Amino acid sequence: MKKILIIGGSAAGPKAAAKARRCDETAEITLVQKGGDLSMASCGYPYYVGGVFDNRNMLLATPTGAIRDPDFFRKVKNIEALTHTEALEINRDKKEVLCKDLNTLETFVKTYDKLILATGASPRVPNVEGIDLEGISTLLSMSDADYLRKIRDEKKIKRAVVIGGGLIGIETCEALQLAGIEVTIVEMLPQLLTFLDPEPAALVQNHIQSKSVHVITENGVKAFLGKDGKLTAVKLQNGTELPCELAVLSVGVTPNSTLAKQAGLNVGKRGGVLVNKYMQTSDPDIYAVGDCIEVPNRITNESIHAPFGDLANLEGRVAGENAATENRKTFSGTIQTGICKIFEFSAGATGLSEKSARQQGFENIETVINASPDCPVFMGGKLLVSKLLVEKDSRRILGYQCVGPGDVSKQLATAAMAITGNLTVDDVANADLPYAPPFSLAIDHFIASAHIMQNKLEGTMAGISCEEVHQNSCKKQNLFLLDVRSPAEFEEMRLGIGEVLIPLGALRTRLSDLPQDKDTPIVCYCKISLRGYEASLIVKAAGYTNVRVMEGGIMAWSYPREK
Amino acid sequence: MKKILIIGGSAAGPKAAAKARRCDETAEITLVQKGGDLSMASCGYPYYVGGVFDNRNMLLATPTGAIRDPDFFRKVKNIEALTHTEALEINRDKKEVLCKDLNTLETFVKTYDKLILATGASPRVPNVEGIDLEGISTLLSMSDADYLRKIRDEKKIKRAVVIGGGLIGIETCEALQLAGIEVTIVEMLPQLLTFLDPEPAALVQNHIQSKSVHVITENGVKAFLGKDGKLTAVKLQNGTELPCELAVLSVGVTPNSTLAKQAGLNVGKRGGVLVNKYMQTSDPDIYAVGDCIEVPNRITNESIHAPFGDLANLEGRVAGENAATENRKTFSGTIQTGICKIFEFSAGATGLSEKSARQQGFENIETVINASPDCPVFMGGKLLVSKLLVEKDSRRILGYQCVGPGDVSKQLATAAMAITGNLTVDDVANADLPYAPPFSLAIDHFIASAHIMQNKLEGTMAGISCEEVHQNSCKKQNLFLLDVRSPAEFEEMRLGIGEVLIPLGALRTRLSDLPQDKDTPIVCYCKISLRGYEASLIVKAAGYTNVRVMEGGIMAWSYPREK
Repeated sequence: MKKILIIGGSAAGPKAAAKARRCDETAEITLVQKGGDLSMASCGYPYYVGGVFDNRNMLLATPTGAIRDPDFFRKVKNIEALTHTEALEINRDKKEVLCKDLNTLETFVKTYDKLILATGASPRVPNVEGIDLEGISTLLSMSDADYLRKIRDEKKIKRAVVIGGGLIGIETCEALQLAGIEVTIVEMLPQLLTFLDPEPAALVQNHIQSKSVHVITENGVKAFLGKDGKLTAVKLQNGTELPCELAVLSVGVTPNSTLAKQAGLNVGKRGGVLVNKYMQTSDPDIYAVGDCIEVPNRITNESIHAPFGDLANLEGRVAGENAATENRKTFSGTIQTGICKIFEFSAGATGLSEKSARQQGFENIETVINASPDCPVFMGGKLLVSKLLVEKDSRRILGYQCVGPGDVSKQLATAAMAITGNLTVDDVANADLPYAPPFSLAIDHFIASAHIMQNKLEGTMAGISCEEVHQNSCKKQNLFLLDVRSPAEFEEMRLGIGEVLIPLGALRTRLSDLPQDKDTPIVCYCKISLRGYEASLIVKAAGYTNVRVMEGGIMAWSYPREK
Repeated sequence: MKKILIIGGSAAGPKAAAKARRCDETAEITLVQKGGDLSMASCGYPYYVGGVFDNRNMLLATPTGAIRDPDFFRKVKNIEALTHTEALEINRDKKEVLCKDLNTLETFVKTYDKLILATGASPRVPNVEGIDLEGISTLLSMSDADYLRKIRDEKKIKRAVVIGGGLIGIETCEALQLAGIEVTIVEMLPQLLTFLDPEPAALVQNHIQSKSVHVITENGVKAFLGKDGKLTAVKLQNGTELPCELAVLSVGVTPNSTLAKQAGLNVGKRGGVLVNKYMQTSDPDIYAVGDCIEVPNRITNESIHAPFGDLANLEGRVAGENAATENRKTFSGTIQTGICKIFEFSAGATGLSEKSARQQGFENIETVINASPDCPVFMGGKLLVSKLLVEKDSRRILGYQCVGPGDVSKQLATAAMAITGNLTVDDVANADLPYAPPFSLAIDHFIASAHIMQNKLEGTMAGISCEEVHQNSCKKQNLFLLDVRSPAEFEEMRLGIGEVLIPLGALRTRLSDLPQDKDTPIVCYCKISLRGYEASLIVKAAGYTNVRVMEGGIMAWSYPREK
């Protein structure tokens, strides 16, 4: 009878255990979990804290309401789940793990034929003054969720600072704001959600700020200030003090690989346990899964730390099957797909960002920003703004980012599959996606992005980013900015940075209103820059040599506007 | 100066014209349209009729509200759009088209360098008694939409019969029901939405019936009965008379290819104009696009008629560019992706159905039904029921159908991309899709479908459809039906066809409650058959030789239940 031992009971561990059981009804399967809870839906914590639902058990229950406690694991899965039990040491020669019952403090030994490490990750905690004050938390464990939910329910705390503007920071920010707390979010880098490029991230930031959340970038925590052991303020590196009674740290996590390291298993540069495609560590009888490992980025082959719940489940499934049988399943890595909801916006990315692509040495790349609604205006279409990244020579899609109030999730799922299939921009340009007015435009947003990219790659469209237009306008450079919308639209909303309005329908008869010098740089745009593109073609045909389109139009403009 | 002439002004025609203009600012581009409207959002008609929006102009306007009339085309696109103008005859030798102004009845000739046919399709109209009565309509033209919208607004008509249960019939059915009309839908075949296989179609039918719509299948129209020239009833082929004041025909469309045929262009078996990948007809100076053509199914290479708005736009774009420049763009055909909304359900398919695959000679195929929510229960997850089709040897995804109240559209878009990329079930099993609780389960529904398919292909799961279980139970065959849910779930909802309840958590200790004969056919299931699958593994491990899982569980059961 095969003995399979799993260390870690959050996501990847229970998944591996359950899959192992499905592959071998007779194996002895034991799961060791340090905490008291098992199989927690940890990605759901922010929604419990924010009051999207009130029943804590929903985080611990199956869809039909059965709590996944040791009794459930024993009866339903025939898995022995030892909670409040810490794995202290792995003896690879003897194939045993020294464990400690955290209630009785007694130690004992569990032997294994196959061992699966699912030891997770721990929050990074800055080593600054005041870090031990009451009122400082993370949102990564069930007890964190309980702590913050209690704060919501007690309604005593008025001000909070969220430190770190990544996925969890953003979700925490929304949860606390929904709890009626005034929130400031502090990010060390110049933008929130650093998996996004700056332009889409700026649009998300605008939305967050429109919800009365204070956003501070390029600043970090210098110290936590307190009184009587309780947090009273966060002091930033620039000296600013933010009075608050609560601070939530979300500055990332590091893989819990100490146990593996001590056992002599190979660990990567990012601190994660190294595994092969079968999820085997450098010891073939030991597998590792979830937030404690590194996995390859499928596009770059770089070994990265990708602590995402969906990957943890997929990895757990592969390791569970391989540990119980032969190595018959593989896991091919990540394309780093991620998404989050923030108030009425969704924001996410799949594949590489332009930033990460350049860091990885991709130089011959092209990007395009597209803004359009997710379905027709008459069906209540909501805006999507996306950025598509392709490799110029192969025309292969490398990455896609999307933000906005529209159906971002579908866009990203579609793009993730396109990247998985190594599709080119031309494949996407002719994709046959599900169309009906409640669901999409006749030409879906993602397909339209591919169309615009074709135009750029083939030289019929030259783009300029809103960022560059903004920089140029600040420097008062000699750009002729041509807004081609209608006078009514111009009256309602406009940049107000010196642009000239010539409605597209009048442009062919008003070419004399353009600068006489045909080499003047001209930038055409409209609300989303579809008309802007048409205008650019008219202007080019009139002999102008330096005509560009402001990509995404006013909808992609993240800077202040006159109106 | 190149002369580009386009015949047809609904979707593909205007798209081709606009794209041609973008590729050539100086060409003379003329568009001939028989009716008075241009560039109608015809897929939006049902939503206008149903009152989702009230402003008719939204069907004819750009997203910013400009009506796409001849004046718009002239000013904005520099395209001469001749409405109320019929193209009577193509003279290919002279490269000219004889046109007729339907207002003045004068004929005139337009010459072309390149001609693009976008003549659309016409509704099939059954040749039965009473077809000319007042009160019989289709929903394919702007005037149809006006007619039916007036009926909604006048609130005089109480009962309607929709003839044909395809996409448009279903959408019309919802629109009329939203207009307060009692609706009966009549379909000649045994199921609605025949692009779906019977099981998902039956779930859609149940939902439609739950909305008090009467559904009659396997029956057609024998005659329309009337009084004083007005419709009073629809008489069916089985003699049933359905009293009504309105009948809407939606029994499909046929390509308008007469003009092409008369000009000697090649026309296919389905009656559509034949084109190559450049959208060229058998005359290289004549292109054809939209509902009047046939296109290849990319999976089978069969030439089919696929009158979908999204394809029309993609085809128009390709033809417009190729007509204006060289043949530099191609269109690769369709995978027949389609979707519709019907009350709280969405339903759609991409790739092949099992039915169509078998008709096309695919024999070595496997299917699986999956039922699960689109996102976690604690986020208000809604059910999806899907059917995945793969080729056994290559493990390539051939098709995917999905129905239910959940986010079907994302599922189909994801699957459509997977099919486009020729992905296998194993590629999908490890896909890195956007996960966060507001958007999906940690293991997305589509990925889970791939996992179940792997289990089936590898022999760890044997499936049986609800249909087969139902047939067997009707015949009182010797199936041991094992429901492994909890007693509380069983109390709340159950099939009541002789099943035995043994909750999964008790199954290992109650194996003696199973039939003594280890060859007894046993069918395990639960609400969605995840626990059913686990149960099947336990039962098999106990030595039973004929154990299957009812795919999709009770959620995929479309037959009456005891509770």
